[in-house]
Amino acid sequence: MSDVTDVLKEYSADVIKTIEENLAPVQPQNLQDACIYLTKAGGKMLRPALTLISCEAVGGNKEDALKTAAAIELIHTFSLIHDDIMDDDDMRRGMPSVHKVWDEPLAILAGDTLFSKAFEMIISSKEENAHPEHVANALATVADACVKICEGQASDMSFEGDFDVKEAEYSEMIYKKTGALIAAATKAGAIMGGADEKEVTALYEYGRMIGIAFQIQDDYLDVISDEKDLGKPVGSDIAKGKMTLMVVKALAESDGEDHERLLEILKDNDCSQDMVNEAIDLFNKYGSIDYAYNLALENVNGAKEAIAFLPDSDAKSMLIALADFVIARSS
Amino acid sequence: MSDVTDVLKEYSADVIKTIEENLAPVQPQNLQDACIYLTKAGGKMLRPALTLISCEAVGGNKEDALKTAAAIELIHTFSLIHDDIMDDDDMRRGMPSVHKVWDEPLAILAGDTLFSKAFEMIISSKEENAHPEHVANALATVADACVKICEGQASDMSFEGDFDVKEAEYSEMIYKKTGALIAAATKAGAIMGGADEKEVTALYEYGRMIGIAFQIQDDYLDVISDEKDLGKPVGSDIAKGKMTLMVVKALAESDGEDHERLLEILKDNDCSQDMVNEAIDLFNKYGSIDYAYNLALENVNGAKEAIAFLPDSDAKSMLIALADFVIARSS
Repeated sequence: MSDVTDVLKEYSADVIKTIEENLAPVQPQNLQDACIYLTKAGGKMLRPALTLISCEAVGGNKEDALKTAAAIELIHTFSLIHDDIMDDDDMRRGMPSVHKVWDEPLAILAGDTLFSKAFEMIISSKEENAHPEHVANALATVADACVKICEGQASDMSFEGDFDVKEAEYSEMIYKKTGALIAAATKAGAIMGGADEKEVTALYEYGRMIGIAFQIQDDYLDVISDEKDLGKPVGSDIAKGKMTLMVVKALAESDGEDHERLLEILKDNDCSQDMVNEAIDLFNKYGSIDYAYNLALENVNGAKEAIAFLPDSDAKSMLIALADFVIARSS
Repeated sequence: MSDVTDVLKEYSADVIKTIEENLAPVQPQNLQDACIYLTKAGGKMLRPALTLISCEAVGGNKEDALKTAAAIELIHTFSLIHDDIMDDDDMRRGMPSVHKVWDEPLAILAGDTLFSKAFEMIISSKEENAHPEHVANALATVADACVKICEGQASDMSFEGDFDVKEAEYSEMIYKKTGALIAAATKAGAIMGGADEKEVTALYEYGRMIGIAFQIQDDYLDVISDEKDLGKPVGSDIAKGKMTLMVVKALAESDGEDHERLLEILKDNDCSQDMVNEAIDLFNKYGSIDYAYNLALENVNGAKEAIAFLPDSDAKSMLIALADFVIARSS
């Protein structure tokens, strides 16, 4: 595990530098500060690392994908800032969220600025002699992911309080909300590394599948971790009545009293820890925790298979380790 | 005048069709509805028309600039939706604003979606055999304008309640907030029309100057119109204590009692129509209304001069008519 974290750190140094350089001209100062705040707060930097490693895995030079990698991290940051406003989340990366440090108007603008800068950065790869065709394809990949992120977030919001959501609808939502940008990260990296069509498709599939596994694991950790590892109470998603794969599955599999009781707990705005534990027992009874774990595992295995045909390299080994990391992590 | 309005209508038909086609796949439905709402509400469609006419003025075929024109209108719409949230404006184009019809979260997302779609549309011009270099340059132009729009809005918000703003700071703000996208509209149109460097620069300058004139005229109309033409009370900017060129100039030129009285009126949250009229008298006394009018006129003349070297064409005549229209309009 520590290997993976070390590698992410190693790759992230150049990404952070690129982000800082590109945000330095933003004026006025408060807008610049709000733009750089979450990058300074730290983060896993999983997406930009995936871009750089995917570039290397197809035989490219990681410098060719650096601006694209940084841009993808900015898109991720933009979506976190706007999501925190929409969901009224006060904390992010252990710090007050952007709209709490400044205010909502400046947080909306900081998101918009990061979005604009991300596109500007990919376009400016041209100046470093990137192939114009690669730049255009990377841009199309990122723009497509941005539309999907918005659609995924809108679906997620529309699911709130709707306990009739089907597994297919839920899966489509998490693919768009989380999978699409991770898939864009690996695909754009491959494109900037000069990959052929087969390699580009494979790295998109790899990213899509680890993205889905990543989101399932997030939901899974919420119910199987202890509070110390998680940094928040166990089952907080249940207490909030949030739709997760385990909720969707347990509601689909249960009926009668159990079904009604689970709905009651999810709808209760004043849910006790006992009720949360009761819901987790129901998840277990209907096999939804195992189901979620197995689906995450299947996606990780699928991701590894998708890139199996690539020639062996350090980068390929790292992609395999990262796929395992997604479901091995405990926070 | 009616000629200009007719031409704008003529050009806007294809733009609206392109926007509708490109937004049709957006899901879920409420997100799509929020995205298309302001386009359906109608608007002057000045920016996309400028893109198409600029393309023609350099000898291009307007079809080559159609997706870019539609994209620029989407960027404009995105900024209106987010600005209305930030400024808490309830009405837009005579209808309730997007965050009032739906809610703030969905309005934030609709803006983000339009932004994403705008870039996607310019990139997809490639599929219609647009020159890859033109597409890349148009994208860079639009991304640069987006950063400036955010910076301009942040400056505008930071000016609120700050009556020490200098004319140079104010001018920079309106260039970024309004001029930059109009300049991007004309520049991107020229690029898609295959313009040489001199023509691209000229059309950027033309757009920048009519953009500034446009904003000054908006502020000017607020004090010289009658309520019937304006559709809102005369001097509503003064009542709100909004920074305009006339305020900046009158504060810079006045001192003593007049200066203090003007500040008092601007800071008054409960400003009567008599006080508004008193402020307008002070604007007149210190020549700030004439100053604003003359500066708008200078910019319009500068814009026309910038494109004077272009060969005569219907498109060139229309650009000249549009420049005059900017300060001749009464609403």
